Amino acid sequence: MDMLWSGWGDPAKAAPLPETVTGLLRDLLGVKPRPAEPPRPGGIPVPAAPLGTAVLRALSAAVGGAEHVRTDPETRLRHTRGKSTPDLLRIRAGDVQDMPAAVVLPARHDDVLAVLRACTAHGLAAVPFGGGTSVVGGLAPARRVPFVALDLRRMNRLLAVDPVSRTATLQPGLRAPEAEALLAGHGFTLGHFPQSYEWATIGGFAAARSSGQASAGYGRFDEMVLGLTLATPEGTLETGRAPRSAAGPDLRQLVLGSEGAFGVITSVTVRVRPLPDVRRYEGWRFASFEEGTAALRRLAQDGPRPTVLRLSDETETLVGLAQPDAIGSKGAPPNAGCLAIAGYEGTEEDTGHRRERAAAVLRECGGSYAGTEPGERWAHGRYAAPYLRDSLLDAGAFAETLETAAFWSRLPELYAAVRTALTTTLTDAGTPPLVMCHISHVYENGASLYFTIVSAQGDDPVAHWAPAKRAAGEAILAAGGTISHHHGVGTDHRDWYVREAGPLGVAALRAVKQRLDPGHILSPGVLLPTD
Amino acid sequence: MDMLWSGWGDPAKAAPLPETVTGLLRDLLGVKPRPAEPPRPGGIPVPAAPLGTAVLRALSAAVGGAEHVRTDPETRLRHTRGKSTPDLLRIRAGDVQDMPAAVVLPARHDDVLAVLRACTAHGLAAVPFGGGTSVVGGLAPARRVPFVALDLRRMNRLLAVDPVSRTATLQPGLRAPEAEALLAGHGFTLGHFPQSYEWATIGGFAAARSSGQASAGYGRFDEMVLGLTLATPEGTLETGRAPRSAAGPDLRQLVLGSEGAFGVITSVTVRVRPLPDVRRYEGWRFASFEEGTAALRRLAQDGPRPTVLRLSDETETLVGLAQPDAIGSKGAPPNAGCLAIAGYEGTEEDTGHRRERAAAVLRECGGSYAGTEPGERWAHGRYAAPYLRDSLLDAGAFAETLETAAFWSRLPELYAAVRTALTTTLTDAGTPPLVMCHISHVYENGASLYFTIVSAQGDDPVAHWAPAKRAAGEAILAAGGTISHHHGVGTDHRDWYVREAGPLGVAALRAVKQRLDPGHILSPGVLLPTD
Repeated sequence: MDMLWSGWGDPAKAAPLPETVTGLLRDLLGVKPRPAEPPRPGGIPVPAAPLGTAVLRALSAAVGGAEHVRTDPETRLRHTRGKSTPDLLRIRAGDVQDMPAAVVLPARHDDVLAVLRACTAHGLAAVPFGGGTSVVGGLAPARRVPFVALDLRRMNRLLAVDPVSRTATLQPGLRAPEAEALLAGHGFTLGHFPQSYEWATIGGFAAARSSGQASAGYGRFDEMVLGLTLATPEGTLETGRAPRSAAGPDLRQLVLGSEGAFGVITSVTVRVRPLPDVRRYEGWRFASFEEGTAALRRLAQDGPRPTVLRLSDETETLVGLAQPDAIGSKGAPPNAGCLAIAGYEGTEEDTGHRRERAAAVLRECGGSYAGTEPGERWAHGRYAAPYLRDSLLDAGAFAETLETAAFWSRLPELYAAVRTALTTTLTDAGTPPLVMCHISHVYENGASLYFTIVSAQGDDPVAHWAPAKRAAGEAILAAGGTISHHHGVGTDHRDWYVREAGPLGVAALRAVKQRLDPGHILSPGVLLPTD
Repeated sequence: MDMLWSGWGDPAKAAPLPETVTGLLRDLLGVKPRPAEPPRPGGIPVPAAPLGTAVLRALSAAVGGAEHVRTDPETRLRHTRGKSTPDLLRIRAGDVQDMPAAVVLPARHDDVLAVLRACTAHGLAAVPFGGGTSVVGGLAPARRVPFVALDLRRMNRLLAVDPVSRTATLQPGLRAPEAEALLAGHGFTLGHFPQSYEWATIGGFAAARSSGQASAGYGRFDEMVLGLTLATPEGTLETGRAPRSAAGPDLRQLVLGSEGAFGVITSVTVRVRPLPDVRRYEGWRFASFEEGTAALRRLAQDGPRPTVLRLSDETETLVGLAQPDAIGSKGAPPNAGCLAIAGYEGTEEDTGHRRERAAAVLRECGGSYAGTEPGERWAHGRYAAPYLRDSLLDAGAFAETLETAAFWSRLPELYAAVRTALTTTLTDAGTPPLVMCHISHVYENGASLYFTIVSAQGDDPVAHWAPAKRAAGEAILAAGGTISHHHGVGTDHRDWYVREAGPLGVAALRAVKQRLDPGHILSPGVLLPTD
């Protein structure tokens, strides 16, 4: 099924806010209730697809039939932008500026090559489209040219499993649950569970360097990738003859994170692991974010590593976003400190060992065991936050997230700087926000910070948010963080990314783009500037 | 001190072969004894440095004084090529074709930039020179142009230690033991112990994607690197704001493995770990290479991981190369199967846990415990093989190594194919070889294979070896291996690398080179073809 055009996921799973929360939003943040019903897709005036018959014929030939080239308004609407809060606000307001001229559905690598040739020949841009879950403007080319959305949903097969090497080759259009189901048939799991899990695709994970909630145990997606095939306007790039090699720069790492700017990922070879026998998630409480952070660092550096390891700051713990299920049902106790979740997946023996030793470390670091209930609640609600956001938007509130990562020694300053930037900017604009944060990805040398912001919307919500987003981006760069730990660059982070990568880094990547995509048809303005 | 110009390391550590081994070489391989004394450096006619005073003045200005620009014959001789067996045979034969015109010693990043500018202005090529330990022709530009060796030995400082994040920033000219000594002052270790450990440098490890003998525990060098500074003819490229990021392709992985073709690495930020309290190395015996390989795979995939994990095949075990100390002293028992070494480094508690559980796995997989003695012997002799090679060459034998890696399922075929290629080619040429192999680097999804070849030299040893090397390279590519797991590409592997990376992969890298080094002054013909 397709995702809700004006929000997240499956409308049947919508999570209306309880009265208590609506009351809190009103009293605490000054949120003014709004009509809850967003406009219907049919109510949005969609301009006709600006493509002539020659183009449509060429695209149809490329993908094996006119039925795989869609120009109807609803399909094009469902492929307009991604799922950032500004994206949702814009589409709800009927802004369809970034709408593709057509949605093209290739079935195989050669189809993709043919689509890229057709686009080059006819002066069309092409934007790869997986699950459509980008929250960084990755699906909206910055240059206003007609473009096709290259929807990869027909490329949804498991191509190969190598049980000895524990690898699998997947097509890019597989949604994560489909990939997991296919792998489970062979006794394996990928272990990649980002918040977008239910909708996002394998190709998107690779293109945007995704990281899942179990990254402490299974690693980031870019660490799982052993090989990639990339279809570019100049032909095919294949990478990954061995798990590791000293034969030159790692070309996989040039394709990972390229966000469609160099080509379309048409297959991904990943490492897989045996399906876990045991999944156990537990809660731990710490007196402060600082104390909890030190505990997470200790486990990340000296082990043993839980499979899932996350820590909410005081505000997030208090609001209960750590457990979306809990909002409005049971209030968190006042002065609740910080809630951490430690999860263990694997064999009975391995998880038992790890849990026992990790628990001892957490206790040594000041943690007190809060039982499995917070862990189970977290696991149950782990993909629910985007639904909650829809309800908040419906209720007239503004809700958005942003994230970063840094070395451990930089983390306290980065945390304070981003919080301050967001709070100050939104307060000065007359909408004091609630700023919550958690650490959800840990490494030996650093960790991620994930911020959730809720406030009143202001009169023009997209314009109202922009200065806060800018202030957060500036704070991140100034405090030594990266502009994105797992959301990616897209068009929204591009200007900061250019500063982060530096002039020569950007120059090197532009040289690669120029060579692989000399017509600059691929996702123009995504990742790299167009001029 | 400088390395022996005509061989490896410190002449005082030379390891003469016992009579028994010389006898074996003669009887088994038909090695004809040669005069043991290689030519003296003074005996080699060295052409005068082909540089005019304007160039020398520019270079001197770049590095802060004429004393840091060396053109004397001995210094240039010591910077001629690396330490592959053909390199040693050529220099011993007085072939100084690949000699640098000058050796330039920058002291800081800005000096390097200035040297590159001076080289560009005067039409000189520049080849970064760390420990001089390349075994793949990485120090001999393929285009015959005058070049300077950019010796980084003055850049040998520890620039920063961040004990919270467990990172350190090192200059590229630090030799590994110097780096370890400096880090030990802060209670840390890098944990990178390749066979070239005693001589190789931090910059070289990064440039060539080195992997050390303890990679099972500490990881490969490219996994340790968190940030890099690269001096290029077009300016400075800085990478690594966070341990992990989704902000675009990983530029670190574009610099790692670039082997001086894109720029000169002038600083490396690495992850460090606490100095281990315990180091324990043990021997295990397996009935066959196949059985031992399965055991290693089991530990690599399901854990626990020893810090060191290696397995010699039947021939290597029999010859005793697994324990260079043992050669000629105690003969290995006949039909000795395959010797594995499992080593544990860390805290008392952690190594105890891991050892106990790993031992149970090794036993389950058919291994029998051989005590700590084989482990201690291995540890004692771990850097000795290159000295042994010198003695073999002195004795009139030919000895060389090559290595590859592949996914586990490909490993048996790869092993057989390379052995057959080497054995057939050298036997057909009248010098039946001894071909030994070990696995020394394991990953979840695959492993490395390291081959050692000993034979008689043939009349023209360099020309005699070439067809065997070619046959091995072809076998590696045909059987799905990578042309190098940790030696790198240099000029020797370039033609295979071009096929491995594919036309578009090479095109992308050439585009990067063109952008960063438009004058193509950096290591021309190393990694990428010049034409």
